[in-house]
Amino acid sequence: MAAGGKAFKAIDPCSGAELEGEFSAAGLNEVDAALNLAEKAAAIYRYTDKKTKAAFLRSIAQEILAIGDELIERAMSESGLPLARLQGERGRTAAQLNMFADLVEEGSWVEAVIDNALPDRQPAARADIRKMHIPVGPVVVFGASNFPLAFSVAGGDTASALAAGCPVVVKAHPAHPGTSALAAEAIKKAAKKYDLPEGVFSILYDDGYTVAEALVKHPKTKIVTFTGSYKGGMSLLKMAQQRDEPIPVFAEMGSINPVILLPEALENRYAQIAEQYAASITLGGGQFCTNPGLLIALKSAGLEKFKKALNEAIEKLGSSTMLTPGICKNYSQVSEEMLQEQGVSVIGRSGNLNKDKSSQALPLVAEVSASSFLVNAKLKQEVFGPYSLLVTADYELELPQIVSALHGQLTASIVADESDLVKYKPLIQSLTGIAGRVILNNVPTGVEVVQAMQHGGPFPATSDSRFTSVGTGAIKRFVRPVSWQNWSNDLLPDELKDDNPLEIWRLVNNKWSKA
Amino acid sequence: MAAGGKAFKAIDPCSGAELEGEFSAAGLNEVDAALNLAEKAAAIYRYTDKKTKAAFLRSIAQEILAIGDELIERAMSESGLPLARLQGERGRTAAQLNMFADLVEEGSWVEAVIDNALPDRQPAARADIRKMHIPVGPVVVFGASNFPLAFSVAGGDTASALAAGCPVVVKAHPAHPGTSALAAEAIKKAAKKYDLPEGVFSILYDDGYTVAEALVKHPKTKIVTFTGSYKGGMSLLKMAQQRDEPIPVFAEMGSINPVILLPEALENRYAQIAEQYAASITLGGGQFCTNPGLLIALKSAGLEKFKKALNEAIEKLGSSTMLTPGICKNYSQVSEEMLQEQGVSVIGRSGNLNKDKSSQALPLVAEVSASSFLVNAKLKQEVFGPYSLLVTADYELELPQIVSALHGQLTASIVADESDLVKYKPLIQSLTGIAGRVILNNVPTGVEVVQAMQHGGPFPATSDSRFTSVGTGAIKRFVRPVSWQNWSNDLLPDELKDDNPLEIWRLVNNKWSKA
Repeated sequence: MAAGGKAFKAIDPCSGAELEGEFSAAGLNEVDAALNLAEKAAAIYRYTDKKTKAAFLRSIAQEILAIGDELIERAMSESGLPLARLQGERGRTAAQLNMFADLVEEGSWVEAVIDNALPDRQPAARADIRKMHIPVGPVVVFGASNFPLAFSVAGGDTASALAAGCPVVVKAHPAHPGTSALAAEAIKKAAKKYDLPEGVFSILYDDGYTVAEALVKHPKTKIVTFTGSYKGGMSLLKMAQQRDEPIPVFAEMGSINPVILLPEALENRYAQIAEQYAASITLGGGQFCTNPGLLIALKSAGLEKFKKALNEAIEKLGSSTMLTPGICKNYSQVSEEMLQEQGVSVIGRSGNLNKDKSSQALPLVAEVSASSFLVNAKLKQEVFGPYSLLVTADYELELPQIVSALHGQLTASIVADESDLVKYKPLIQSLTGIAGRVILNNVPTGVEVVQAMQHGGPFPATSDSRFTSVGTGAIKRFVRPVSWQNWSNDLLPDELKDDNPLEIWRLVNNKWSKA
Repeated sequence: MAAGGKAFKAIDPCSGAELEGEFSAAGLNEVDAALNLAEKAAAIYRYTDKKTKAAFLRSIAQEILAIGDELIERAMSESGLPLARLQGERGRTAAQLNMFADLVEEGSWVEAVIDNALPDRQPAARADIRKMHIPVGPVVVFGASNFPLAFSVAGGDTASALAAGCPVVVKAHPAHPGTSALAAEAIKKAAKKYDLPEGVFSILYDDGYTVAEALVKHPKTKIVTFTGSYKGGMSLLKMAQQRDEPIPVFAEMGSINPVILLPEALENRYAQIAEQYAASITLGGGQFCTNPGLLIALKSAGLEKFKKALNEAIEKLGSSTMLTPGICKNYSQVSEEMLQEQGVSVIGRSGNLNKDKSSQALPLVAEVSASSFLVNAKLKQEVFGPYSLLVTADYELELPQIVSALHGQLTASIVADESDLVKYKPLIQSLTGIAGRVILNNVPTGVEVVQAMQHGGPFPATSDSRFTSVGTGAIKRFVRPVSWQNWSNDLLPDELKDDNPLEIWRLVNNKWSKA
């Protein structure tokens, strides 16, 4: 806990009470110190061998698990999330660290390419040229409020940046400073165990915006990652673009994750779909970036049955604790505002408020016609919480119009049966144009941490749709390619040496090879 | 040649005379029409099979070659570049198109990744997830003045965008509209031959900035490529960032390509190095983005011998025709201004002016001390033309200071012998931090079109150092990854189908495979 600045405490959203432990907002001198240390560490950590990097990442996972109940209990108090969810998230955090350890140890992720010299080429010889990714330098990671473990201090951004060879400076999320401090200690222990330079990891606290601005504007910061609101992400992005040396910001800024419910599927499976989507809309209090906030369907008898089943499922559900009192207040306000918009009515809403707890959100599903939706920008905005809006089309032609009217999305889903898939093929194909992940007969919540995951969609879902923040591909955010021309074998990085001492996959003279 | 707007003619820089043929600046309605057509074409061309795409690219190359002497003669008249250079450039243009044809036909460039379902996983099943790159949509390509064939209408940007599956709208460079029109006809013939939608390729002319602005701001434009000045690139980048939907601009904005000449090498090989670098500095009238505009060396007897040899080599050279009268005027002015800066003196300068031709540039190499260089921002700017500045360090410690003071670069080169490589290892290693390509005992000019080429360095050399504009990697600028979750085999793109019908390399359940 940094010395100096203004002190603040964490709030338990369930009770609204202050939690024990005082955290000090970092001063500008501490921001500067962290980035100076990070820059020094970058010059060393870049050359740390891949086995040590992998062991470091695995050791962070072990240290996180070794904290035991204290970590889960503190996270529960600070986030209002339930035990099982946070145990699962801890498992995911450790699994992510181990996955990047495996990736780094295997080593092929650097995309080594070798084109040997052609000394006899006419009219001029061709030099030997070899390329691979190198780490870019200090990364500033903003912890996310909705995943106090898996997308926070020791989460996916930190794991992938450290795997890439970049030092990390974390700006802890003010909603869970105690959880952050515990995770930071785990990382520091692991760094010490492997004798890594001090600046390889730092953490700074602030419950305001001063530290955030200073971090993004600091000349030694090379990359920023952020998961949160559109407003927050855009503010960091603008700052980063206005620097003397602009830097990339990987911001995930929210998504309404449209789901198209097609007629045949609704007719055949309305009850099962209603149950599945009632669960997805309210999972984790609806506080997921992949929460299905928009359902799209054509008027039909099946749709009426679906609405009735959805209403019944939603009404049965209880309230859930939101991450912070502020997020809860915002949810109540914005979801009510939506109901005031032209043509919006309620399909289902829970009235089961848990009066023993604060920061309670009640699930709500509303409905609007396609014609009202198309002309109303407000209805296309994210409502962070257990909310979804059903847009009902009167005519088939409105379906592609609705899709065209949407902004970029993290995900887009289709619920369809055999005949739907044939009839609506162009509509279904068009979804790849607006989303990073397209899902068939499945829910968008639950983002698997695998090689094939793309968690990043067209603007404004994320600031850069070419990259993912989940899965092994996340490491690519922290590197850039460099070519070596005409170097002798002993001077090249091991990844590019003739005899492939690291035994990685490489593209050698246009052929993939591990030899 | 578009109807409507203001007419303009090309200028022969050798004579200053207008060339025949009149070109009309496009109106805003033509910009709109081109992008509407491009968007329509995008929806079709995306699904054009890879064999047809490859045949289309090869056909463009054939059509370019089939134009014959007319293309070379027009390019000579419009650019002032000599016959052999333009013949070489035409060969390069065709080779690039054929290289991307091969890449697309082979097909593995889409980076297909498959993670099969784990239906029995506890506590919840894992869905099948598959990922690959898809084309992003209409690309606006700005033709570059210094490569009227290889980085213009049918150049690397167009070839790689078409290979990726994106339609292209070219803004022709006003210095070579006739060459542009010939190349555009070749592309249109090839598109017709393969029955591709009209909007797959369009060309627009303008000798001002109206069309450029309208193209970058058009909502249907998805990506912009540009090679030119810092001022021009930044202006497009700002416009693109301020759009409602910001889009990527891949701008190459100039570089001074530092070369560190180490003591042992200078002592042993000063004559050969002087000859090699005199040629590199003046190649193509110094009008290459990889022109070595900055030489860095430590005071020594070897350096004095090198300077004398360089002077002799430069003095012998004649003047060369620059690309446009404007570029020539700018070169004369800026290179003279550099000589007025504190502490700058002349090492070598040619006085052999060709009085029969206009737009003539005389080679010039100047010198300044490290202490003067470090405090003078102007000396770190690019001088576009046959110019280089030698920075002489009094002490070894000044060498890393000079490197630290440099902006991002396309290339950084080292001229070194055995003992230099040992003694200056940290300095040499530090060069990967400032450049996209690091070169040992070779010249930076001559950018090979190969898989391992990285032509793109840290800001401000390019706007995005994670991508290259030369080599097969250039195709990655026009795509983004999409994941398919839970789709049945028959509905997936061929690249992701179980039996790998396209026989491409894929990462299947964490293992690379062509099966």
